[in-house]
Amino acid sequence: MAGYQPGEQPRPGERVVKLNTNENPYPPSPAVLAAIRESAGENLRLYPRPLADKARERAASVYGFTLEQVMVGNGSDELLALAVRALVDPGQAFVYPVPTYSLYPVLAQIHGAKAVEIPFPADFSLPAELFDRTEPLVILCNPNAPTGTLVPRSQVRRLAESLTGVLVVDEAYVDFAEEDALALARELENVIVLRSLSKSFSLAGLRVGLAFGSAALIDGLIKVKDSYNVDALAAAGAEAALSDVEHMRANVAKVKATRARLTAGLQELGLRPLPSQSNFVFVRCRRGRARSLYRKLKERGILVRYFDDPYVDDGLRISVGTDAEVDQLLRELARILATT
Amino acid sequence: MAGYQPGEQPRPGERVVKLNTNENPYPPSPAVLAAIRESAGENLRLYPRPLADKARERAASVYGFTLEQVMVGNGSDELLALAVRALVDPGQAFVYPVPTYSLYPVLAQIHGAKAVEIPFPADFSLPAELFDRTEPLVILCNPNAPTGTLVPRSQVRRLAESLTGVLVVDEAYVDFAEEDALALARELENVIVLRSLSKSFSLAGLRVGLAFGSAALIDGLIKVKDSYNVDALAAAGAEAALSDVEHMRANVAKVKATRARLTAGLQELGLRPLPSQSNFVFVRCRRGRARSLYRKLKERGILVRYFDDPYVDDGLRISVGTDAEVDQLLRELARILATT
Repeated sequence: MAGYQPGEQPRPGERVVKLNTNENPYPPSPAVLAAIRESAGENLRLYPRPLADKARERAASVYGFTLEQVMVGNGSDELLALAVRALVDPGQAFVYPVPTYSLYPVLAQIHGAKAVEIPFPADFSLPAELFDRTEPLVILCNPNAPTGTLVPRSQVRRLAESLTGVLVVDEAYVDFAEEDALALARELENVIVLRSLSKSFSLAGLRVGLAFGSAALIDGLIKVKDSYNVDALAAAGAEAALSDVEHMRANVAKVKATRARLTAGLQELGLRPLPSQSNFVFVRCRRGRARSLYRKLKERGILVRYFDDPYVDDGLRISVGTDAEVDQLLRELARILATT
Repeated sequence: MAGYQPGEQPRPGERVVKLNTNENPYPPSPAVLAAIRESAGENLRLYPRPLADKARERAASVYGFTLEQVMVGNGSDELLALAVRALVDPGQAFVYPVPTYSLYPVLAQIHGAKAVEIPFPADFSLPAELFDRTEPLVILCNPNAPTGTLVPRSQVRRLAESLTGVLVVDEAYVDFAEEDALALARELENVIVLRSLSKSFSLAGLRVGLAFGSAALIDGLIKVKDSYNVDALAAAGAEAALSDVEHMRANVAKVKATRARLTAGLQELGLRPLPSQSNFVFVRCRRGRARSLYRKLKERGILVRYFDDPYVDDGLRISVGTDAEVDQLLRELARILATT
């Protein structure tokens, strides 16, 4: 098996406009950096709290859950892996609509589970075949990657209520969207909502994710995690980040404004961006053209994401950077399109 | 299933002498703390290097391996879980001598694998039944926990050469021992050696482990790990720790001196400590007495580790603290023994 392929990272010192891995262009809260620096002391000789207690308490309080309904993970990638391990027996299948986050099939391979992939319809609403499933787990990335599209909560609820098993809603990008499914994690026994501090909180380097769901589901995830999955520094940083949600919201507002600028600019160039509810825009091109655009942008020092995958090889996923970065992208794209 | 039970941690602010989780009583290198503080900056918004490149390079250089023969993990606990996942199919068995680290059976349960437990003989040399196995994986904790005993490298080599599958040597405590098995990871195709920065490097809070083995074995572990298993701060701290091995060695020398003092003190009290090659001492008591000693020490503000496990419920595992902590333990123990 090939393993998951993360987006390429420039070598240290390489100067590129990096719009390929959905990082936030704005820095994290100064309170996060201060909390980490304060934690970088003698007490690192001690084991961390196995459940990152303070970050967990803060998450419960911010999002309106009890402690037992929340857990902290080493990124939401770890929480996805735990959900597969806790809920699916090897040999069993789990289900997700495609195109979507390319980690899901890798998790199936690693676990020896079968991945049932159901194509989204052209408008990226929920496929009818996703309803009434009897498999132990369905995963819905919402907003979806790499399309940026959002399924309304009312539809997610209808989906959850139709399933025999558990619905994991991967909301890594939801702070950039108009609504979320946390209410379903509170109300329904079979819904887990996953969050990430990587994007909206500008903390991809810290590796912190959150899971919300019934106490029974969360307990099942905790049982299969590594004993100390979140280190003392990440736990301190997460607690501070969740104590300064305003900083995150201000950055999100800027990203959303630039997203509108990017979307409009792409349309002006005659390209077809999907309506995005995330911090990236998926733009469709004439078939066969996406890879060449990706390469030409890279030659000009701009990294975007191209997927060699039949569902999405007709487009590029462009992370929303700063206004200046997005303007540079649009300028270079205009030049490339003018000469080809 | 119950999940792994870590040693109890005092609540913040609680004043106890903590000799129950094998933490190093001395602080980590100031260079580690400086590197972490420096990394706590704006760049946390970016994803870390998926393989913690700089820490990996440093580990390869310090221990004499090529880059492809090394990986960095989120604690050696993660590396143990990856080894089980990469090498054992659910339903298959893996093998280890007991008593040993209580995580191994939990990993079997989580993975749906069968744990074959082979009792150590009374002198904690390798059991004959451990040789010539055909299972895909044998794990040897060496020095062993919770006994602190060491199997000589020559015996570990003989074991590895007798096996059809892979031998993982869990060397979390080996910096406190007289010899190690890294040479076997270099020379034999079927040996993985695991290290931890938690104990000897005083970095339990950072969660960093290292795996060494053939490029093929290491590649197999990397394929089943989470995409970004080590965060940017832990990676920076690990690189700095591995660049200041002298600091670790100086702390280890102090711990070993105190270990001798603890061992002698326990013998003077008429107890039977096992010869330890680690940063803890396992002391045998009259059967049925260990739990009561544990409780009475706890009442006096001293935490040691008692295992409710038929193999080791006749003893206590005492972490080597500072001289002052060990003297306090010996004093309280003398009082308890005098009155019971």
